[in-house]
Amino acid sequence: MEEQTQQQQAGPEVEARIRTSFERQGLMRHLGAHLSHIAPGCVHIVLPSRPEVTQQHGYIHAGATSAIADSAGGYAAFTLFPENTSVLTVEYKINLLAPAIGDHLEAVGTVLKAGRTLTVCQLEVFGVQGGHRTLIATGQQTLMCVKERSEEPGEPSSM
Amino acid sequence: MEEQTQQQQAGPEVEARIRTSFERQGLMRHLGAHLSHIAPGCVHIVLPSRPEVTQQHGYIHAGATSAIADSAGGYAAFTLFPENTSVLTVEYKINLLAPAIGDHLEAVGTVLKAGRTLTVCQLEVFGVQGGHRTLIATGQQTLMCVKERSEEPGEPSSM
Amino acid sequence: MEEQTQQQQAGPEVEARIRTSFERQGLMRHLGAHLSHIAPGCVHIVLPSRPEVTQQHGYIHAGATSAIADSAGGYAAFTLFPENTSVLTVEYKINLLAPAIGDHLEAVGTVLKAGRTLTVCQLEVFGVQGGHRTLIATGQQTLMCVKERSEEPGEPSSM
Amino acid sequence: MEEQTQQQQAGPEVEARIRTSFERQGLMRHLGAHLSHIAPGCVHIVLPSRPEVTQQHGYIHAGATSAIADSAGGYAAFTLFPENTSVLTVEYKINLLAPAIGDHLEAVGTVLKAGRTLTVCQLEVFGVQGGHRTLIATGQQTLMCVKERSEEPGEPSSM
Repeated sequence: MEEQTQQQQAGPEVEARIRTSFERQGLMRHLGAHLSHIAPGCVHIVLPSRPEVTQQHGYIHAGATSAIADSAGGYAAFTLFPENTSVLTVEYKINLLAPAIGDHLEAVGTVLKAGRTLTVCQLEVFGVQGGHRTLIATGQQTLMCVKERSEEPGEPSSM
Repeated sequence: MEEQTQQQQAGPEVEARIRTSFERQGLMRHLGAHLSHIAPGCVHIVLPSRPEVTQQHGYIHAGATSAIADSAGGYAAFTLFPENTSVLTVEYKINLLAPAIGDHLEAVGTVLKAGRTLTVCQLEVFGVQGGHRTLIATGQQTLMCVKERSEEPGEPSSM
Repeated sequence: MEEQTQQQQAGPEVEARIRTSFERQGLMRHLGAHLSHIAPGCVHIVLPSRPEVTQQHGYIHAGATSAIADSAGGYAAFTLFPENTSVLTVEYKINLLAPAIGDHLEAVGTVLKAGRTLTVCQLEVFGVQGGHRTLIATGQQTLMCVKERSEEPGEPSSM
Repeated sequence: MEEQTQQQQAGPEVEARIRTSFERQGLMRHLGAHLSHIAPGCVHIVLPSRPEVTQQHGYIHAGATSAIADSAGGYAAFTLFPENTSVLTVEYKINLLAPAIGDHLEAVGTVLKAGRTLTVCQLEVFGVQGGHRTLIATGQQTLMCVKERSEEPGEPSSM
């Protein structure tokens, strides 16, 4: 599935929906992250390395690594959701495999299983230095599709 | 164990070590987070609510919630580590239980099992509104104690 | 919540529903496990130590530890579900903290958050030797409440 | 990495070490599981479907699914460990994606990152019916390489 989706581009309506939602994520803007790829079931987010995202040894903080991984997986799921729904992260698990270094990180969220209510994504984060990519984190995430209440757009109903 | 540690204060040497390390975490400063409690095996971190840490619905982003939870657990473990060591997050898993709202979030990291090499922490994050606390996320984290190489202080050795 | 539920007994209807379901779990019978406590939001399962449940060093296998933890959490959630529903494990994560030894293991599943669709449980497994209990595993689990299709009782609908 | 390892066979010494250890796992024998593939960094385990491994709806129990996934990942890591070491599962997380049905399940453990102390594996479990394979569970696992104490072979030291 991944190969197929990597080669596709998402339709313009889906891409617009993802970009609009992403721009409302104050955290992504504050961290300096941006969307670098949107395809059906697969979204990439790039985070440039800078002092504002580091931990105590100067590497990128696991919290920043996780934040872009979580958003990449959430939007990967969201590309496959019907209209008038929103996406909630139910949970995720992430292993930090190597120090998060590089000019930037790239998080890749890929849908493994799309269900009516729940979707499961694979999360990968790469450290990119020059042309060299190193897998620095890998994770697994569960997401929920929630119907938006028309009276309060964007307000997810309770789980 | 939790009750005991909650009532204790960490010794001044340990507290200084934690505060020095925390101040080097560019991400925590950038998010506006601060340490609110340091005890042996238990550390709290507070994150005030503001637009820079939100997701698309205006709640606090799971990535910000996770970042303070990860740091709280890491420092909880670090309070119990011997001198000349540093702490690495191996992995964590977090469930988002409720929308992350409130005047601020408070992350609580508590050591469940301290080992020579690996330590396991419980992670809890509360949304605090006025005097009311709601559990909004719960997780579990594995950390590693690594000896610092004296020639490069603060540089963790490979896993 | 835990203290409250520990002191309560589940109503006879709920207890009967749990026991009937447990008896249909071929794996629990094959492993030699039994229900030892059923309360609203909290279920315990006991697994006696014997050669049929070991790993290569003679300790109880992580798979057996996980199996009783998963069932304890699933039934803890099920105690709170409405009639004509069934319970599915969406995912769980477990840390093995110490060698699984003792006369028997006791798994404790406790509901942390009960939602309409999703429920999150804490999982704990203790090794019990004489009167001494040691925490040997701790985990976190997400469960789903699914409506049973009347034409095929017990058949969960797809996620 | 996976493709490479899939095509290789493990050396006879490594294969013998894995088979000897597997045969000492009372649980695998009791469940009726067997090793079906051993390559460097990749091990498969097959579990035939039968009433002794079911949950309450007649599907294979998540505990049995997890048990073979945990063992497959543990042995995948073990193929890469030096002599006179043993393998401990630190933790794992698993998502159950679809009902566990089929003539048999096949668990595939694949090393994602091999470290000196810690190794991270991907876990996949397929339901196999005739020639048709369906991914029914996916997970991620952390393992530890522990030196065996010569006086008590097979006895892992504490974490």
